[in-house]
Amino acid sequence: MIKKSLLLFFILFLIASPVYAAPTTASLELSINLVWVMLGAFLVFFMHAGFAMVESGFTRAKNSLNILIKNFLTISVAAILFFVVGYGIMFGTSGGSFIGTDGFMLSGVEDIGFFVFQAMFIATCATIISGAVAERMKLGVYVLIVVAMTAFVYPIVGHWVWQGDGWLTDLGFSDFAGSTVVHLTGAVGALTAVLFLGPRLGKYSSKKVNVIQGHNIPIGALGVFILWLGWFGFNGGSTLVADPALVPMVIGTTLLSTSAALVSSAAYTKLRFKRVDTSLSLNGVLGGLVGITAGCAEISLGGSIAVGLISGIILVEGIHLLDTKLRIDDPVGAITVHGICGIWGTLAIGLFSTSTGLFYGNGFTQLVIQGIGVAAVIAWTMITLGVFLFIVKQFTSLRVSEEEEIAGLDFAEHGSNAYELKEALISDDEEPLLNNLGLADRLNNLTTTGEPQQKSS
Amino acid sequence: MIKKSLLLFFILFLIASPVYAAPTTASLELSINLVWVMLGAFLVFFMHAGFAMVESGFTRAKNSLNILIKNFLTISVAAILFFVVGYGIMFGTSGGSFIGTDGFMLSGVEDIGFFVFQAMFIATCATIISGAVAERMKLGVYVLIVVAMTAFVYPIVGHWVWQGDGWLTDLGFSDFAGSTVVHLTGAVGALTAVLFLGPRLGKYSSKKVNVIQGHNIPIGALGVFILWLGWFGFNGGSTLVADPALVPMVIGTTLLSTSAALVSSAAYTKLRFKRVDTSLSLNGVLGGLVGITAGCAEISLGGSIAVGLISGIILVEGIHLLDTKLRIDDPVGAITVHGICGIWGTLAIGLFSTSTGLFYGNGFTQLVIQGIGVAAVIAWTMITLGVFLFIVKQFTSLRVSEEEEIAGLDFAEHGSNAYELKEALISDDEEPLLNNLGLADRLNNLTTTGEPQQKSS
Amino acid sequence: MIKKSLLLFFILFLIASPVYAAPTTASLELSINLVWVMLGAFLVFFMHAGFAMVESGFTRAKNSLNILIKNFLTISVAAILFFVVGYGIMFGTSGGSFIGTDGFMLSGVEDIGFFVFQAMFIATCATIISGAVAERMKLGVYVLIVVAMTAFVYPIVGHWVWQGDGWLTDLGFSDFAGSTVVHLTGAVGALTAVLFLGPRLGKYSSKKVNVIQGHNIPIGALGVFILWLGWFGFNGGSTLVADPALVPMVIGTTLLSTSAALVSSAAYTKLRFKRVDTSLSLNGVLGGLVGITAGCAEISLGGSIAVGLISGIILVEGIHLLDTKLRIDDPVGAITVHGICGIWGTLAIGLFSTSTGLFYGNGFTQLVIQGIGVAAVIAWTMITLGVFLFIVKQFTSLRVSEEEEIAGLDFAEHGSNAYELKEALISDDEEPLLNNLGLADRLNNLTTTGEPQQKSS
Repeated sequence: MIKKSLLLFFILFLIASPVYAAPTTASLELSINLVWVMLGAFLVFFMHAGFAMVESGFTRAKNSLNILIKNFLTISVAAILFFVVGYGIMFGTSGGSFIGTDGFMLSGVEDIGFFVFQAMFIATCATIISGAVAERMKLGVYVLIVVAMTAFVYPIVGHWVWQGDGWLTDLGFSDFAGSTVVHLTGAVGALTAVLFLGPRLGKYSSKKVNVIQGHNIPIGALGVFILWLGWFGFNGGSTLVADPALVPMVIGTTLLSTSAALVSSAAYTKLRFKRVDTSLSLNGVLGGLVGITAGCAEISLGGSIAVGLISGIILVEGIHLLDTKLRIDDPVGAITVHGICGIWGTLAIGLFSTSTGLFYGNGFTQLVIQGIGVAAVIAWTMITLGVFLFIVKQFTSLRVSEEEEIAGLDFAEHGSNAYELKEALISDDEEPLLNNLGLADRLNNLTTTGEPQQKSS
Repeated sequence: MIKKSLLLFFILFLIASPVYAAPTTASLELSINLVWVMLGAFLVFFMHAGFAMVESGFTRAKNSLNILIKNFLTISVAAILFFVVGYGIMFGTSGGSFIGTDGFMLSGVEDIGFFVFQAMFIATCATIISGAVAERMKLGVYVLIVVAMTAFVYPIVGHWVWQGDGWLTDLGFSDFAGSTVVHLTGAVGALTAVLFLGPRLGKYSSKKVNVIQGHNIPIGALGVFILWLGWFGFNGGSTLVADPALVPMVIGTTLLSTSAALVSSAAYTKLRFKRVDTSLSLNGVLGGLVGITAGCAEISLGGSIAVGLISGIILVEGIHLLDTKLRIDDPVGAITVHGICGIWGTLAIGLFSTSTGLFYGNGFTQLVIQGIGVAAVIAWTMITLGVFLFIVKQFTSLRVSEEEEIAGLDFAEHGSNAYELKEALISDDEEPLLNNLGLADRLNNLTTTGEPQQKSS
Repeated sequence: MIKKSLLLFFILFLIASPVYAAPTTASLELSINLVWVMLGAFLVFFMHAGFAMVESGFTRAKNSLNILIKNFLTISVAAILFFVVGYGIMFGTSGGSFIGTDGFMLSGVEDIGFFVFQAMFIATCATIISGAVAERMKLGVYVLIVVAMTAFVYPIVGHWVWQGDGWLTDLGFSDFAGSTVVHLTGAVGALTAVLFLGPRLGKYSSKKVNVIQGHNIPIGALGVFILWLGWFGFNGGSTLVADPALVPMVIGTTLLSTSAALVSSAAYTKLRFKRVDTSLSLNGVLGGLVGITAGCAEISLGGSIAVGLISGIILVEGIHLLDTKLRIDDPVGAITVHGICGIWGTLAIGLFSTSTGLFYGNGFTQLVIQGIGVAAVIAWTMITLGVFLFIVKQFTSLRVSEEEEIAGLDFAEHGSNAYELKEALISDDEEPLLNNLGLADRLNNLTTTGEPQQKSS
């Protein structure tokens, strides 16, 4: 009986996979690695839910719909473009160790599972930009950036490092899961976009730097947990093989580095600001993840704790530096998390790699090579995306109008709003009207600046 | 040392699995497929969290508790009934190619993993109804519908298509992961229930169609991401085997079709309504998932993009048609997402299947067969559930009283409410105690009683 | 082309895993079990997101940040301490069947995958305490408790039951996935802490017991779904091997027991309180999960339904008993869920185990052994953590000041707040202040019709 139902599927899959035969150890190994890489791909996909929740939760309610739809568009546009051109540019036969030249539309590509895994990856690079340009960039312009990043900028970097014949691979540059390839590339793209875009209204006044608080930290914290979960697939899946000697080390270093980063950022904010700062600590988690991404396969468990502890502190100082000193308005701290911690993670290999690191008696060579890779990716991304945005700017403004920004992008671009919590608020009130007045008053100040205190002056 | 700890588990599992022996390629293949199907089952289970968030987020705050508990009851009641009767009806020895006749309580069933996977599946069919009848149906009546759907209506359809001896299987009807079996069946059940139930108060006035906005779109968007993630297990796990030649294609088509649907629904709403409509675009994602569910194993990657692009546009027009033209009040668009896109996905095989599709020079045969299957499932579901609801209606009203609907089902059926966000509103005041006298006062009563009504006395 | 890209990873992993050789059935079995245990570890990790959402959602908005950061600190501190000392104490060579004596810093430990899985486990024990002490305990004190539980209290219990040479193992005590080892230990720790801490302000007045309502039940419900999902990895991964004869039974019993518990708790609250109580029903899900955790590998599918039905009712009565009769203030019901249901689940083996249970004609022996294990763990945890807290109390108060508790821990300990939802209230208004009057007006009607525009006419 049960056999029959299985039979049906069996037939179905015989039809679909003519190559099926009695299992050999070779075919079984393919199946095991397939399951492992698919698990990794699913977890990396889920990271986009994490990014969406983090970016939505850490910004204002009036821009939530816009941020959510941006995250859906990122994975969707990226997946299609990676299928059409990205995969070929990234993994196609190398032209001068610089760019792939075939495999477009996956023609001639056999390993579709590898494509799926890489397609989930590429979108994470683009989505980093989404958070940094939040609350002011036109949706259309953001989509153009996603196109540029996923169809050209990122695949080229990926070709240099991961295709096998790239010039950075030849040089000996090491980046196992993408501290540089994915995170630094995305962060430099974000920085470039923010420099063109400028800060949000009300963020910086002549005298002071205003805090524009996120509107829903619990959902942002859930996003951080989802990202941490997804990262086990991001780093673990990058092994591409279910190797009992390699995978547990990768997962172990990812777990310990991130744990150490949360502890150090929480402790450091307590020392520095006399209180455990929640959003900096949550960003510390992400900093610890980015920091171990490059070296997760060649750094020891103890070393990963050291890398994480440093990532947590770098994160806090980095956000402070950009936000208050350099006055670069990055609503979710993406540039620091993915950029500064991405650089740290890449260089950390030169220090902590058990096979090539300075601290293991291997001298400065690897560290220098890592530095060259970092510099090359920064220059490449900043120049290409910079030129692209300069051209775009000739045709349209990159940001929404002042009125639209004040009203909120949800209203301006989507004609709607993310929350309708009125019933929740008044469900147990006898006279909603009355106390709604006092409320509305205080509300008013906020929408225009996101900064209540300022208004009282 | 470590050996010892492993030894314990080893003993435990020797006890539990007397059949254990040194691994053979055959036994290893069983293990690999087990891991793959369990991964699929877990992801499909998680879809229920996605449905719960989508249905709760896209309806009003005053009905959230009711929707959440409905989703928990759906998976729970469905799992138990599938164990008791559903599995037997669906996969038992066929009686006249129409209904299963043994395997009740899983007696004689060996593959428990297959039961687990199918148990997660069945609940998704019933939960589709939950969203369509939201905000007005009695909880008890909804539970009766879940019983009818999971103990009888759905298992019969499943028998026709997936047991192996069903008449639709004999006919050559193809539905790999359930565009028709799961989604269309659920959607027709939803339509039938809504026709008995009528629209929500205030939805339709003589002149106009009123928009009743969802209360928490970010959590709804998270639900959509969770559903997309879960769908990789829904379609991927349906292979039942970790076949390197089949699985990556299934995941690839699922990814690309959905991405295309999001892009087309977003673009189409921009053209049609001059703005990217967020909730229609999010429903576009779901439409793209339902649209590729039937053909994910026999449509090419390129074909899946075409199927998705069409799904996204069908979704927008379908919701518009039902909501404004036909005046069928479906709060979350479930009938369009699972029904209209389910039909499209089933027919799409007749067009895009690389082995039987019209566009690949195989003529109209498959298309006609697909149409017959669709018609049969629509008729079967509408008649059986219709008769069932007609009988139920003789004993009790299907919907809550007008007063209860206005007060909200959370209060009416559960005596509580989903949100208590007052502190969130006042927590950033300079002098909380003073400023919030009004609020703090009422808060205080609330915290000390949790019983608003009490205050009126 | 694709080969080249694979080649790169291949080289990478050859470097990283010198032991790699052509696959044998033995090496393949290692890989399959690795994938299964890693999947389990990822799911157990995700449970921490579930705990964070449950604890945040079921308490007040003014304490959300504090609860979220506590959950992040729990997994982070626990993972690091488990690496440094916990693993050695738990799985090191046994000293007198009582405590592990080597393997600190994982020296000499080969199976890093097993460490990773167990590291995710240990944190779940500590995080149980987080919910029970919510809204009043100092963050620093909570961190000290996490240190005590994860570095000493829990690993000792784990040694007794899971290391292989522990005295409870010798005795024949059975606890497959940790109803006692993880959940009862955590719950007794929570009870001990709450007894030292006392109830929240305003919870108990001389005459009455006040309900302090959760602030965001939808996110709490999502947390419950995440916990249920994670539990499939918690119980399933505990098999440590992808055994087709064992794993499906474990997943099946976990699914059915939990489903039964939700149904029974929902039905029981309907009978007892004339309405389906949402939060008790959601806790019923968790009670059903804890209840089957010990016996999931040796109880039949039918038996698991019985265990679950009883768990659901015990849960409701247990919470009622602690909250109103014993006046123990446990904001999220953690002590009942993990403690009382943990005891029930452990004893249930003595009744329902198909190999040793009373109901299968094996007499009372196993039941008595299970009782001894329960008693030992309660005594051990209560005494050790009690002494620890007594000492801590000599140096600092365990709870925040009354002012801080009223203001909320988010403001007091973190100087911030979790929500900023004002824009959500007015985002669709041109002139907030003015229109807000109208808004409030429409709100009032909105609750009564769900239709703003209509009112203006």
